[in-house]
Amino acid sequence: MRSLRKTVLLALLASVVLVVALLHSWPTRTYSTVDVRQRPGPMVEHHLEERLPELDHRSGNIPYRLKESVASLLARNGCVCEGENGGVNIPFAQLLFPRVSAHPLHTAFEASELEEMKKRRAKEYQGFQMRSQSPANAIILAEANSPLQYPTQGVEVRPLKTILIPGLALQDLSREIYSINFTVSLGTLNVAAEVEGVTIKGDGEMHMSLSSSLMPNLNRQLQFVTYTNTLFHPSTADTVQFETEGHQAIFTIKIRHGVTPKLYNTGPQGEYNISALVTIATKTFLRYDKLQDLIDSVRRYYPTVTIVIADDSENPKTVSGPYIEHYIMPFGKGWFAGRNLAVSQVTTKYVLWVDDDFIFSSNTKLEKLVDVLERTTLDVVGGAVREATGYTATYRQTISIEPGEEEGDCLHMRRGFHHAIQGFPNCVVTDGVINFFLARTDKVQQVGFDPRLTRVAHLEFFIDGLGSLHVGSCDDVIVNHATKIKLPWVSQSESDKTYAKFRYPPASSDATHTKNGLLFFKNRFQCLTRN
Amino acid sequence: MRSLRKTVLLALLASVVLVVALLHSWPTRTYSTVDVRQRPGPMVEHHLEERLPELDHRSGNIPYRLKESVASLLARNGCVCEGENGGVNIPFAQLLFPRVSAHPLHTAFEASELEEMKKRRAKEYQGFQMRSQSPANAIILAEANSPLQYPTQGVEVRPLKTILIPGLALQDLSREIYSINFTVSLGTLNVAAEVEGVTIKGDGEMHMSLSSSLMPNLNRQLQFVTYTNTLFHPSTADTVQFETEGHQAIFTIKIRHGVTPKLYNTGPQGEYNISALVTIATKTFLRYDKLQDLIDSVRRYYPTVTIVIADDSENPKTVSGPYIEHYIMPFGKGWFAGRNLAVSQVTTKYVLWVDDDFIFSSNTKLEKLVDVLERTTLDVVGGAVREATGYTATYRQTISIEPGEEEGDCLHMRRGFHHAIQGFPNCVVTDGVINFFLARTDKVQQVGFDPRLTRVAHLEFFIDGLGSLHVGSCDDVIVNHATKIKLPWVSQSESDKTYAKFRYPPASSDATHTKNGLLFFKNRFQCLTRN
Repeated sequence: MRSLRKTVLLALLASVVLVVALLHSWPTRTYSTVDVRQRPGPMVEHHLEERLPELDHRSGNIPYRLKESVASLLARNGCVCEGENGGVNIPFAQLLFPRVSAHPLHTAFEASELEEMKKRRAKEYQGFQMRSQSPANAIILAEANSPLQYPTQGVEVRPLKTILIPGLALQDLSREIYSINFTVSLGTLNVAAEVEGVTIKGDGEMHMSLSSSLMPNLNRQLQFVTYTNTLFHPSTADTVQFETEGHQAIFTIKIRHGVTPKLYNTGPQGEYNISALVTIATKTFLRYDKLQDLIDSVRRYYPTVTIVIADDSENPKTVSGPYIEHYIMPFGKGWFAGRNLAVSQVTTKYVLWVDDDFIFSSNTKLEKLVDVLERTTLDVVGGAVREATGYTATYRQTISIEPGEEEGDCLHMRRGFHHAIQGFPNCVVTDGVINFFLARTDKVQQVGFDPRLTRVAHLEFFIDGLGSLHVGSCDDVIVNHATKIKLPWVSQSESDKTYAKFRYPPASSDATHTKNGLLFFKNRFQCLTRN
Repeated sequence: MRSLRKTVLLALLASVVLVVALLHSWPTRTYSTVDVRQRPGPMVEHHLEERLPELDHRSGNIPYRLKESVASLLARNGCVCEGENGGVNIPFAQLLFPRVSAHPLHTAFEASELEEMKKRRAKEYQGFQMRSQSPANAIILAEANSPLQYPTQGVEVRPLKTILIPGLALQDLSREIYSINFTVSLGTLNVAAEVEGVTIKGDGEMHMSLSSSLMPNLNRQLQFVTYTNTLFHPSTADTVQFETEGHQAIFTIKIRHGVTPKLYNTGPQGEYNISALVTIATKTFLRYDKLQDLIDSVRRYYPTVTIVIADDSENPKTVSGPYIEHYIMPFGKGWFAGRNLAVSQVTTKYVLWVDDDFIFSSNTKLEKLVDVLERTTLDVVGGAVREATGYTATYRQTISIEPGEEEGDCLHMRRGFHHAIQGFPNCVVTDGVINFFLARTDKVQQVGFDPRLTRVAHLEFFIDGLGSLHVGSCDDVIVNHATKIKLPWVSQSESDKTYAKFRYPPASSDATHTKNGLLFFKNRFQCLTRN
């Protein structure tokens, strides 16, 4: 009997210990609920700076004269695509005097489906806007003659963490009592130290007041004000309202993780180790002979650089060799899908894009391109492609987007570049380049080649990269282009014919449809101009 | 003779016309040179808010008492990874009372190579910092009692475009003459209109002055001040110094392209059309039987949804069927390379990640996951995976990064979540989820699965996505996991054995090396803690 009671007691004791231990480790934090549903928030007043100011009652009668040269540069409400008319109608006109042409994009769709497409696009765009807007982009004005000193920029806190708010101070006239209020909405306010002579109310809450009869003490207290983010969001901003007698100031605290670096091992220091730094990427379709010519030419100069090949031929052949990675895709999956596949496999710091009909020569010095990216902040640097005729192209394009209204934005593309680059006399800064370029792998993977583009496409990558990619172009690194001239006495091979069928689709086919249809729907353009 | 002269004259005339036309269309813009070389710029004072303020001469003697509960939340200089010691040493201890363990990451490297790795990492990090810093992140303080009113946030201009600067005004005491100066460095200042009674100097230059004896006139003029960006950069900010007698204000103008949307066509409105909205993506290696079970189970509920399969088996078998896309990779290229490949091919708005040994059931309602992403701002929503035992896991993980100094940052991962989600009672917000999730295709492609991770890896995707991805997890959408229990009387198949060899590598192999080595080098961590 005694041993039984002992066992029962022991078991009871063990359970109690277990339960206590469990309760102890039970999460004590009460999880609150956050509303992350998509709802239209307060509309940010974007057009404030874009319209000329209306007459207001204070300045109603002060005469002014418009300065047309400047006023004409300001953005209008909405945008238009206008081509240049007239011009000399002679042979090679477009070559000698490239004129700007305008192209509406809704024509990608049948009239019957256009309304539906516009509605769907507007709905998707609304979702996009709700996800991309942030209080950190709203226009905030600093009041004049405010006794408040505060930080207008640069205050950041990581999600759910705490910071000291820098730079708060009060420089007021003499008063009996000085009183300051703070209000936040995505976190709480507190103080890291309590200063003598200051009354604190609401510490640990969303609304806090500090008051004192001594301004120096209040200012010392202000140096200890803290903000703690409590409502989790990986990337947002809280608005702090900071006020005293008759004056208010507003500033934002960005709530976000730091930017986590994506660094690449570059191999031993010293000279540029191209095999450690660069992977060559290309896409092929039916042109195994040209592809092999490319590989052979690369190997003459770079015997150990990895070559990644995306292949969507119907009956894929084996392409093998040291440092060759061959990827087989579903037949005809497409051009940009293949490009996206190839770059998705790159493990080196840089990726060199080449077309499968390029030939490396002694002028194809990858070290020069690496040097540009190693020593500048550029993300992409294009080279030059030489045709059999000797004609060498860099295909530099500047790209800009003019914001429109419900109809969509206007895309403007022009041949040319923005600036030369200091220290690199053969190089310039532009927005789009030819299909022979070296790029930072992480940036290219981040922008991506949209797999929805199946056939003819090129600048779409640079359009998607606008704002992310800093693009350069150097004309002294040259790769040769295997001839495309259809010599009349040379009959096309069967594979050449099939290739041509896919590569150059007839005007009414899906390819043009997809390209312009995507610009219309995906990027929300109404039209484009180019020269 | 006459006809010859006529021909010569005509030729001469034609050449003159040609030359004139060429000169006319010659770009008249003089291209300036821009310096985009990587150089250390002014170091941004990040630690300002993180340190408790030093005693300064004005508040030298004011006593204060530290509030430990708040002061302890502030970031220290550097970070540490500390595990929890002690605890009950009983069976299932880690399961019942998960304790935090700390892991240094430099151990991924041999002692002989560690110094070299640290040097290389520091050099790469320096380049990264130079490319990511912006004047838009610097701390700026608004002066107290300044007669200047100005915009502290929200002023943006597209590269090389012009805007009106909003909100400028002067509210000064009575003076003989009011004078305001502006200075910018990446563009020029001007006025869109000239107001009577105001003297303007330096319009069209980097330094402009406005003066007047009449304050209302000066204020009217201030409403017409414009900024034009002239030094091209796709994403930067200019600092405007704005001053009057004895007072100065500083604010930034962001110079950047707008964010170009990447919208997806969602198919006809109405009920969720899963085939139009979702692509299922998976990676397979040697487990064709399990893969076929997965496909069969998917087809029972979603007969037309596209399934993308990345396959790096040694001797790939054909996997075919309607709406199946099979991609062949080089043998053993790797886990994350395969994941990156699969998602790089997705053309629908959402992508559903599944492992190749999952089985769909009637509880695998993709419509529920789509509903979450359609109606919230979340980018990823994980589901739950049910083992043969009935045990269902959501593998929710919260992730935070504590900034360190030269040694690197500290990565902290904890089981759990941040908040419940309003309107979705079975769902929460977290940072990492199990390998069964629906995600916005553009966000997943933007973050990417690093192809350098060849074998075991999971949370690395969510670590790379920190700050970009808003992650949710719902426990009411369940997929089954084909059994992993090694029943002793069932002999392993040959392919199972080979699979196990690659999937569960021995402790000293490259896999662990790559995972921790990458965290150390690529993301610049010194250590991690987890429970």
